[in-house]
Amino acid sequence: MAVIALLTDFGTKDIYAGVMKVVIWSICPDAQIVDLTHEITPQDITEGALALWGAFRFFPIGSVFCAVVDPGVGTERRAIAVQTQEHFFVGPDNGLLWWVLSESKIIKCVELRNSTFFLPIVSKTFHGRDIFAPVSAHIARGVSLEEFGPELDSDEIVKLPPLKAEMGEKTIQAKVIHIDRFGNAVTNLRREDFVKYLSNLEEKTW
Amino acid sequence: MAVIALLTDFGTKDIYAGVMKVVIWSICPDAQIVDLTHEITPQDITEGALALWGAFRFFPIGSVFCAVVDPGVGTERRAIAVQTQEHFFVGPDNGLLWWVLSESKIIKCVELRNSTFFLPIVSKTFHGRDIFAPVSAHIARGVSLEEFGPELDSDEIVKLPPLKAEMGEKTIQAKVIHIDRFGNAVTNLRREDFVKYLSNLEEKTW
Amino acid sequence: MAVIALLTDFGTKDIYAGVMKVVIWSICPDAQIVDLTHEITPQDITEGALALWGAFRFFPIGSVFCAVVDPGVGTERRAIAVQTQEHFFVGPDNGLLWWVLSESKIIKCVELRNSTFFLPIVSKTFHGRDIFAPVSAHIARGVSLEEFGPELDSDEIVKLPPLKAEMGEKTIQAKVIHIDRFGNAVTNLRREDFVKYLSNLEEKTW
Repeated sequence: MAVIALLTDFGTKDIYAGVMKVVIWSICPDAQIVDLTHEITPQDITEGALALWGAFRFFPIGSVFCAVVDPGVGTERRAIAVQTQEHFFVGPDNGLLWWVLSESKIIKCVELRNSTFFLPIVSKTFHGRDIFAPVSAHIARGVSLEEFGPELDSDEIVKLPPLKAEMGEKTIQAKVIHIDRFGNAVTNLRREDFVKYLSNLEEKTW
Repeated sequence: MAVIALLTDFGTKDIYAGVMKVVIWSICPDAQIVDLTHEITPQDITEGALALWGAFRFFPIGSVFCAVVDPGVGTERRAIAVQTQEHFFVGPDNGLLWWVLSESKIIKCVELRNSTFFLPIVSKTFHGRDIFAPVSAHIARGVSLEEFGPELDSDEIVKLPPLKAEMGEKTIQAKVIHIDRFGNAVTNLRREDFVKYLSNLEEKTW
Repeated sequence: MAVIALLTDFGTKDIYAGVMKVVIWSICPDAQIVDLTHEITPQDITEGALALWGAFRFFPIGSVFCAVVDPGVGTERRAIAVQTQEHFFVGPDNGLLWWVLSESKIIKCVELRNSTFFLPIVSKTFHGRDIFAPVSAHIARGVSLEEFGPELDSDEIVKLPPLKAEMGEKTIQAKVIHIDRFGNAVTNLRREDFVKYLSNLEEKTW
């Protein structure tokens, strides 16, 4: 089973997401495509990074994530593909993939340069369709990462600030990083950090 | 063909619905997943029950419906699976399934208790992912209902008021129960009830 | 691979689009269904025609497009299926298919009359489910167009005004015909027309 997950800011009113799917199926007809969401706020990289981070653990080994929140499309920003111990990630190198990668074991990272694996005509505004979708489909079919372009040191990948609360001696500075449809507010305070903090407090009190 | 229909109030902006799908495919890779809707008004059980009722007749025999509008998630409300003569229904026991069940022949009803069929870690807030999606996938693979937990008398299922207008001697009290995107107003007056009412009127007039 | 693309104004809150899918899968279980969009503004034929036109080139040969923006449903408007050199198009004959057809080589066009290929009961308000979805699925399974009803001369198909800017001697009158989620404004000025216009200008200047 080749699972390809899509995460974009394209919305569902325009035909962009649908066209990406048919590009994928044209290359990899048995891909099972999961729409994670197409409703990331336009160009909001951190919102996209957070959504990707919240979802990736539930995907089977070998799944390919095609993530496109790409305000820099058409500029010199890199397009990359990253293989971790469990998954593959394809997208612009703008931080979008960072929170997932920072908690994964990176095996290989390449810059997408080999246009053999792109659509024949590459537009300046829709790399989701022309580059990221076809590359994701080729990865799902088993093409290995070095085929797509030169290797990139994982240190060079664009980063976001850590997805963690600031843990002080006596205080925690946490941020609400997402409010879902039910009004649930998600903070960047991790359960394990909070547990550690509480047990430190207890030790000091005793 | 194993069809699994999803009906939730999770929306499509958050990744919840997408994660349910990949959980299903991880267990039942050839499931054909139909998104009936993920845009039930949050926690609106009757809206969800109505949508399910409007759709279920069109599904092939053996289809599994995974319905999650679940304000009581994390409380003592039961989680159930019901086999009718034609379909399977999985969801919280809060009335959501009632309008469909009240017009179906119930074969068997069980409470979901056997955590073998859940995800390894069950959260307090997302039983759609952790319980209902995996159970639906196991049913689609052919696991029989008694495996999931103790049998439940169908009388014990939580009910909603009948989905029917009040038919008086001379008057009908019908309610608008749904207004669709085109402005079509759907009432709870059934065609057959209206026909019967009209023919009664005629008899009396003659 | 049988790809069936759906384009409707049904929205995704109501169950209409989901029911169309299960009707298709009941007839053609291995169809790969692509939701192009279900969020065409209700009854906006030109918006639907434009979306279809923007997408169809990316679909593999043999794909079936089931397009339903159908303010005339239940009236005498024709329901049609059209085979072009590369694809099949199914929908109401109200202009929705025109911009695609005007740039395709039409092989055959028929009026949908043979109710053998419809659902057993055809409603007055939901031909998407009762006529267009099942016909699309039968086409994807290989039923040839003449089975569905009498042939129609392609001249009889309902047309829209050309999807092109008015090119004057010195001026161009172009319209913004779509604004996408990112604020990109799309006009009806074609690249090739603009290039030709510019080279004419240059010739005159020289």
